[in-house]
Amino acid sequence: MPKISQKGTMLPASAIRKLVPYADAAKQRGIKIHHLNIGQPDILTPKGAIDAMKNADMSVVEYTNSAGNLSYRKKLAGYYHKHNINVTEDDIIITNGGSEALQFAFSVCLNQGEEILIPEPYYTNYNSFAIQSNVEIKTIHSSIEDGFALPKIEEFEKAITPKTRAIMVCNPNNPTGYLYSKEELEVLATLAKKYDLYLFADEVYREFCYDGKKHFSVMQLEGIEQNVVLIDSVSKRYSACGARVGAMVSKNKDVMGAAMRMAQARLCPPYFGQIFAEAAVDTPDSYFTEVAAEYNKRREFLVDAINKIDGCFCPKPTGAFYTMIQLPIDDSDKFCQWLLEEFEYNKETVMLAPATGFYSKPEKGLKQARITYCLKIEDLQSAAKCLEEALKVYPGRTN
Amino acid sequence: MPKISQKGTMLPASAIRKLVPYADAAKQRGIKIHHLNIGQPDILTPKGAIDAMKNADMSVVEYTNSAGNLSYRKKLAGYYHKHNINVTEDDIIITNGGSEALQFAFSVCLNQGEEILIPEPYYTNYNSFAIQSNVEIKTIHSSIEDGFALPKIEEFEKAITPKTRAIMVCNPNNPTGYLYSKEELEVLATLAKKYDLYLFADEVYREFCYDGKKHFSVMQLEGIEQNVVLIDSVSKRYSACGARVGAMVSKNKDVMGAAMRMAQARLCPPYFGQIFAEAAVDTPDSYFTEVAAEYNKRREFLVDAINKIDGCFCPKPTGAFYTMIQLPIDDSDKFCQWLLEEFEYNKETVMLAPATGFYSKPEKGLKQARITYCLKIEDLQSAAKCLEEALKVYPGRTN
Repeated sequence: MPKISQKGTMLPASAIRKLVPYADAAKQRGIKIHHLNIGQPDILTPKGAIDAMKNADMSVVEYTNSAGNLSYRKKLAGYYHKHNINVTEDDIIITNGGSEALQFAFSVCLNQGEEILIPEPYYTNYNSFAIQSNVEIKTIHSSIEDGFALPKIEEFEKAITPKTRAIMVCNPNNPTGYLYSKEELEVLATLAKKYDLYLFADEVYREFCYDGKKHFSVMQLEGIEQNVVLIDSVSKRYSACGARVGAMVSKNKDVMGAAMRMAQARLCPPYFGQIFAEAAVDTPDSYFTEVAAEYNKRREFLVDAINKIDGCFCPKPTGAFYTMIQLPIDDSDKFCQWLLEEFEYNKETVMLAPATGFYSKPEKGLKQARITYCLKIEDLQSAAKCLEEALKVYPGRTN
Repeated sequence: MPKISQKGTMLPASAIRKLVPYADAAKQRGIKIHHLNIGQPDILTPKGAIDAMKNADMSVVEYTNSAGNLSYRKKLAGYYHKHNINVTEDDIIITNGGSEALQFAFSVCLNQGEEILIPEPYYTNYNSFAIQSNVEIKTIHSSIEDGFALPKIEEFEKAITPKTRAIMVCNPNNPTGYLYSKEELEVLATLAKKYDLYLFADEVYREFCYDGKKHFSVMQLEGIEQNVVLIDSVSKRYSACGARVGAMVSKNKDVMGAAMRMAQARLCPPYFGQIFAEAAVDTPDSYFTEVAAEYNKRREFLVDAINKIDGCFCPKPTGAFYTMIQLPIDDSDKFCQWLLEEFEYNKETVMLAPATGFYSKPEKGLKQARITYCLKIEDLQSAAKCLEEALKVYPGRTN
């Protein structure tokens, strides 16, 4: 029997995935689980876009253009214009979700063994894409005390080696919910320019900003257009995670040319999803206003509820629908497993994402977990109650 | 401005893609192009499956299971049973087309620099996936004289080095249309077993066999279950290339476990496409009988028409909807470009896929081209006429 590859053995199973068997077992015992662990919104997908896809005339479900349908790319360029991002259809390749855009960017921008600097905690799946592309992720620590603001630029500069090729941010951030400001991004841009690094930004949560803050895109940065690569997706924007329609956007023709050859090899992005996504561009602004208002209510509620729990701390995030929380516990992985395996409160429990998976060194996340507020208030209420009661009895409680 | 990666520069642009600007210019001049160059069937997608997708109840277009919907994998296992392939839903990961299944297989089975043996000519995009996965493709020559039958097993054995980790076949074959027999596959299996190699098979044209021949799958081979990885797709089966729903199938739990971690990183395959594909499993047998009969008519017509052209030779393929043809020309790339750039016959011309891209050394394909018979007979008729007239006047004609 042939062995699997070294890469195959290196691919990480996420901390959340390891909990799934315990969650399944809890469900089997009749326990209701409040899923604060995943970013699957319960928000309805815009019906108009689903209906437009259903009503489209389809006789042969053909390959689309490898870059994505021209009509969709044109509409998407219009969407970007509305967000003060000046791109044309030629600056866009439609991808199988944001995931594929990350794979394209890593592969065509970095040589084997080269490094991407990322503030940590960071989205776990970046690790898998880095392993698949034979590149390295190097982290700069950001801290819960200041809500995971951008670390000092000196910290980035210190971490730059001859192997460094890119800086990457997720903005608004998953897992922290932090929204980087224009000023923070300009500082990063100056550094990227100085060392001739790529600046990657995963902006799939663009629509979700709170407290009157406005999202500023890396594509709006001036004088660094050739270094910037935007990763985007319709998954969160339209609560359509299953559509698998993302985009890689850049003004750098060499990067886009090479990415296009990767796009051609895999033939095309999904036909049905693109019809949906094209129609979704017409989603009225009122949809986003309502969704953002709903998330804001949930955010206000959950942050407040967590901070009221003895020993817990939760910064107030201004973007996306995640936040990291500090917990009075010995070990986040153990605690999250215990919640599913041994705890219940009125036949209910709560599932969190252990923060160990979001840090370069798992021990940095031992006392933290990521929670999402993409559930209804009444569920968040029960979830917070479960957490409060659990912390009263958890054997590994530390203070 | 940062440079793109070495991998980015290595990714090939296919010979066909290079012709696209010439095709566009020809269309601008009002020339009708008969596309014998691509495998985009004009066969209708089963309406029942499209309608089932359209009628499905969707309120939130959620992430699906990373391995694909359980209900779909169960139905797909049923489809395989019908084809005497004994697998369960746990042996299947649903992928973004066959393309992603290839990427998974290459990445989790081969270490960097290791080699896959493939009979040539072979499907060009394997090159891109090999480059992306840092693995090497080594070819064994098969020849047009015997219709591209499996080369002698001694040729494979001679090519095996300590770096060889896999043998791969596309069956029925793209670009040759050759259908490997049970006996040929058993010989390959014996060799794979002897050297403990993986045996990959891309069987996306399974449904298209002619002259009463039956497809035999690598999954039916006995005693080599742990070495075999099947690459599959609904693209050609249901004329649904745009659905982007494929599958990686194997009994090897280590391989599937590692592939599953890649699948989890990219979250899930397409939601809409999977609903479509699940419904498509119920497509009545009569659909395939009719489609195969239609392709058979086209095959009979086109092979005959090509062999009637002075200086041309075309073996009679027994699978898929491609065939390679031998042409009395100096250079396939030049000829195919000339057809678009300088030739016309009654305001029409024909587009072929230069065979240079299907060989490890382009010069091996200088006098060959791949054609498909996935167009209507009347179009094939005009296409063959164009080719005949073109060869009468092509300046680089050789005999």
